[in-house]
Amino acid sequence: MVNETQHTCSASSSSRSDGGSSSGSESSKDNSRCSTPVLDSDRHERLREKMRRRQDAGDKWFSLEFFPPRTANAAVNLISRFDRMGAGGPLFIDVTWHPAGDPGSDKETSSMIIANTAVNYCGLETILHMTCCNQTKDDITGHLQKAKRLGLKNIMALRGDPAGEEWEEEVDGFNYAVDLVKHIRNEFEDYFDICVAGYPKGHPEAESYEADLRHLKEKVFAGADFIITQLFFRPETFLKFMKDCQAIGITCPIIPGIFPIQGYHSLRQLVKLSKLEVPQEIKDVIEPIKDNDAAIRNYGVELAVSMCRELLESGMVHGLHFYTLNREVATTEVLKRLGLWKEDPRRPLPWAVSAHPKRRVEDVRPIFWASRPKSYIYRTQEWDDFPNGRWGNSSSPAFGELKDYYLFYLKSKSPREELLKMWGEELTGEESVFEVFTCYITGEPNRNGYKVTCMPWNDDPLATETNLLKDQLERVNRRGILTINSQPNINGKPSTDPIVGWGPSGGYVFQKAYLEFFTSSEIVTALLKVLRKYELRVNYHIVNVKGQNITNAPDLQPNAVTWGIFPGREIIQPTVVDPVSFLSWKDEAFALWIEQWAKLYEEESPSRMIIQYIHDNYYLVNLVDNDFPLENCLWQVVEDTFELLN
Amino acid sequence: MVNETQHTCSASSSSRSDGGSSSGSESSKDNSRCSTPVLDSDRHERLREKMRRRQDAGDKWFSLEFFPPRTANAAVNLISRFDRMGAGGPLFIDVTWHPAGDPGSDKETSSMIIANTAVNYCGLETILHMTCCNQTKDDITGHLQKAKRLGLKNIMALRGDPAGEEWEEEVDGFNYAVDLVKHIRNEFEDYFDICVAGYPKGHPEAESYEADLRHLKEKVFAGADFIITQLFFRPETFLKFMKDCQAIGITCPIIPGIFPIQGYHSLRQLVKLSKLEVPQEIKDVIEPIKDNDAAIRNYGVELAVSMCRELLESGMVHGLHFYTLNREVATTEVLKRLGLWKEDPRRPLPWAVSAHPKRRVEDVRPIFWASRPKSYIYRTQEWDDFPNGRWGNSSSPAFGELKDYYLFYLKSKSPREELLKMWGEELTGEESVFEVFTCYITGEPNRNGYKVTCMPWNDDPLATETNLLKDQLERVNRRGILTINSQPNINGKPSTDPIVGWGPSGGYVFQKAYLEFFTSSEIVTALLKVLRKYELRVNYHIVNVKGQNITNAPDLQPNAVTWGIFPGREIIQPTVVDPVSFLSWKDEAFALWIEQWAKLYEEESPSRMIIQYIHDNYYLVNLVDNDFPLENCLWQVVEDTFELLN
Repeated sequence: MVNETQHTCSASSSSRSDGGSSSGSESSKDNSRCSTPVLDSDRHERLREKMRRRQDAGDKWFSLEFFPPRTANAAVNLISRFDRMGAGGPLFIDVTWHPAGDPGSDKETSSMIIANTAVNYCGLETILHMTCCNQTKDDITGHLQKAKRLGLKNIMALRGDPAGEEWEEEVDGFNYAVDLVKHIRNEFEDYFDICVAGYPKGHPEAESYEADLRHLKEKVFAGADFIITQLFFRPETFLKFMKDCQAIGITCPIIPGIFPIQGYHSLRQLVKLSKLEVPQEIKDVIEPIKDNDAAIRNYGVELAVSMCRELLESGMVHGLHFYTLNREVATTEVLKRLGLWKEDPRRPLPWAVSAHPKRRVEDVRPIFWASRPKSYIYRTQEWDDFPNGRWGNSSSPAFGELKDYYLFYLKSKSPREELLKMWGEELTGEESVFEVFTCYITGEPNRNGYKVTCMPWNDDPLATETNLLKDQLERVNRRGILTINSQPNINGKPSTDPIVGWGPSGGYVFQKAYLEFFTSSEIVTALLKVLRKYELRVNYHIVNVKGQNITNAPDLQPNAVTWGIFPGREIIQPTVVDPVSFLSWKDEAFALWIEQWAKLYEEESPSRMIIQYIHDNYYLVNLVDNDFPLENCLWQVVEDTFELLN
Repeated sequence: MVNETQHTCSASSSSRSDGGSSSGSESSKDNSRCSTPVLDSDRHERLREKMRRRQDAGDKWFSLEFFPPRTANAAVNLISRFDRMGAGGPLFIDVTWHPAGDPGSDKETSSMIIANTAVNYCGLETILHMTCCNQTKDDITGHLQKAKRLGLKNIMALRGDPAGEEWEEEVDGFNYAVDLVKHIRNEFEDYFDICVAGYPKGHPEAESYEADLRHLKEKVFAGADFIITQLFFRPETFLKFMKDCQAIGITCPIIPGIFPIQGYHSLRQLVKLSKLEVPQEIKDVIEPIKDNDAAIRNYGVELAVSMCRELLESGMVHGLHFYTLNREVATTEVLKRLGLWKEDPRRPLPWAVSAHPKRRVEDVRPIFWASRPKSYIYRTQEWDDFPNGRWGNSSSPAFGELKDYYLFYLKSKSPREELLKMWGEELTGEESVFEVFTCYITGEPNRNGYKVTCMPWNDDPLATETNLLKDQLERVNRRGILTINSQPNINGKPSTDPIVGWGPSGGYVFQKAYLEFFTSSEIVTALLKVLRKYELRVNYHIVNVKGQNITNAPDLQPNAVTWGIFPGREIIQPTVVDPVSFLSWKDEAFALWIEQWAKLYEEESPSRMIIQYIHDNYYLVNLVDNDFPLENCLWQVVEDTFELLN
């Protein structure tokens, strides 16, 4: 996007200009040669910078607080909630720290792993809470090091609740949040953005409101970047608190914590924990309807909306922090009514970017994982650097093995019973498999009346873009070309196109037509004959589970199949068909037949044998039509193949 | 280009496939991530591999031998001859080694520097001759190290003529070419491709023809990769020699040296030096016409063509090596008649690639040096790595200073007197400068009847591509928009397009419209007002000699202005408008006013003052129209500017 302001700078005052004309004796070893263009400045900014930029631009924003779930299944659900609520555009989310729940462990329900998943797999800017009370310095440093290693960049530094009733200060221990703030700054310098808690009514244990304000100032002066407040019930409570903070010299952002009342019991519990008092006017409304959940939620939404409006209109508040209690409806409703929920169809890249700092420059991926981005991120998490600008030599990528099919963030959202209903309690032959694929494409119910809303290779319903190809896809799936990935060709649509657009506005996006499918060796034999006619136009890779590989790719080079041209930027080519990665994808794609489908059935059962047969005998094929300005010829290739077979 | 052969490989036999699915514990630090796509497999092959590939493909080829000139002016001419004869597609050229001419020095007439220029500035695969007789091991190693440093990859290892009449073998010295071959292999292993000389009639000093063959075999077995022969007059001489070589086990390529007779005296001298005997049938033809140069040359061409045909038809000869004597006409004529001269309009990239191994991956350059590629190569010669895939962060490039405007390969081909005729013996005002620019564009003679065939920023007549913009360019130059670089927008022309095409066939090339010019501050003021209307569409950089810089480029990012989409490859984007490089180019572009133009005139003369005034007060402007699918708006921008001024 063209910058609207004119920059006038004389060479003498601009160090960058000087850099450009410096002496010839310097050689340019700088790695930044290969740095990615700033696609989305968000990707390169720290949270505090994003906050500052939004504030300067007058953009209001929101953030969402979640707690780690108790069970692995709940974790799977929470992650899909992250994906759904992430679509509304939160500036960040935060994950609370539960000392009793082994929060720094590798369990799928630990705070650390939930935050890791949010950052790396959902691409969300995330704050990890951390408490310090009753913990050793080594423990805390260990947690922080782990957080850093996982790509977490923001910590909410808290004291936490003392373990016993009789809490005593430890000499040289972590007695207050300020000790944790100091420790983070001592040990990690400026690596983390640090958030601290503010109490609009004063901390319940503080000697006084004023004393608590002084503690807050200490935390800020020890290195905290911003403040999120405890919940409160009246806007004036926050606004007074904010003015009092400013009066004693606290100048960092202070974000009000908003708690939409969602039910009688959750309110009571929270009030008990936080030792807050619910104002009488609220009690008066709630008590009479305490058994009517819907009524209470409606009231809670109403109340939150009106409070948020007042806060925003004060001009002192730029962002709102929501205590979601891991629920979606009330908070989403409040955000939508405030006009803060922004499902921006614009995407910086065609795939969802990861928020790990190591992946900031990443702007190229193989197309194969388009529907399994979390698996791709998992399998490349050990990479030290990520391709940008070009995929490059195809011999470099070393993909991690996908041993853990049941890693919670890679797991299907649907339980076994549902999958059986969709994919068939009992398969009678390869044709019943064709039928499942066809129903997934058409959206029609299967013979037992169930809609097929996911497949082993795709846990979500068909992408809008794939809908563009629906009729052709249906026809070929019926006949045993079992498609798992495809894209139409695009010859220069505006980057703001709601379906195929991505990247900054004012640009143009392009695609080569792509089709990927499993099919029988009989069809492959015919296909190969047909492909001779298309030799100069279509690139293909055909491989079976044993790795027999047939291709016409020149020198095993990657083929860029999605690219964009933008004002004032270098070309961006975010997806490629890479021949070597394809062999790693092949392993995963074939394994999914067994891991996700065959294993639904008893061993030795006919249904399982059918899937096993397909796994053992079918080929995985990908086709690229290089002639993107012409009509996609891949359907003709498939038609020719069927014709040859008849 | 799609490879026409099908590759079938099982995963077990293919190490590359294995690489793709190797363990996740390996991280991918491999630099090759950023490697360039193989645009032109020639760029990555060694000379001996190119030879082998051409032979396998049944392609006939030729090569050209030159000797270093005696004067700097002759060197300038030889370099333009390299450029012209390079256009015919030689597989390589070679440069002879003259021990008396300080051949390893940095003089512009040394063998070393001429070969360096051929490789680095003309992009020609080059063999440097080297003799070893009467030289110390250290001298020779020094020469070879220097050759390697300069990017030379091929050595023709020769004994050379002994200095005195009474030559005696030195114990442990370099007595024969074979000693040099062994030394190169000992000290540089396989770095160099080594060529040795073969004597179809036997070396004049050899005991016998057979003994000489044995010496040749020794040279080959010591590590030579191929053989170029001394000239000969009858095809059967060569064919017999070749069979004799094969009979004793010499299997490497043997390339016949062809000498088109170009004149009576040069023939006599060569015969004297080489101690060859001219066959009577040739003498019989030449003697009667010895004073008629044209007749002798015609006969020489005829004779060479017929001999070459016979050699090629034998099926034993795949390449022909021409002794050009630094002349163009006869050799070019022979090559054209043989059908070997191939002016291939296809270019691997829009700019001429350099043959230095360090630059093999280079595939992006700033557009500014489009007409001064040798200056760009010179100023970036110290770079350790070259941008490929993307230009990247604009703060990295450190350009060498262009102190040596009179480096022979950067010098204008035209002498001062000619330049004065073209650019004006006497300037009367800025308008007479406008006129020079306009005449250069139109090709019309100037007011004194001279055509303007070069400018300080462009030593060659207008490019064919620029001709597409001729009318518009003429109009704006007349009015003081002094254009020095431009390109039209292109929205997907075939890569084989004779004017704007480049890269492998089957692709599509694109361009954003570009315009670069000098103009007065009055025009710049109006232009800036006009540009507000085009803010989202046009990127601009406007700078004066002092470095005052006005731009709307976002974050000083490079803007890709030429790119190509090819079958089975990543996107290639060979030219960018890079804001930081522009400031280095600005220094060079402004300096050329003074160095090339102002200095033609007496100090303090009115003509010189006019150029000095322009240098001191004008701005250098570049404009990019980002909306490449629409009609180029840059002419409208300029028209609007003129309108505003009126």
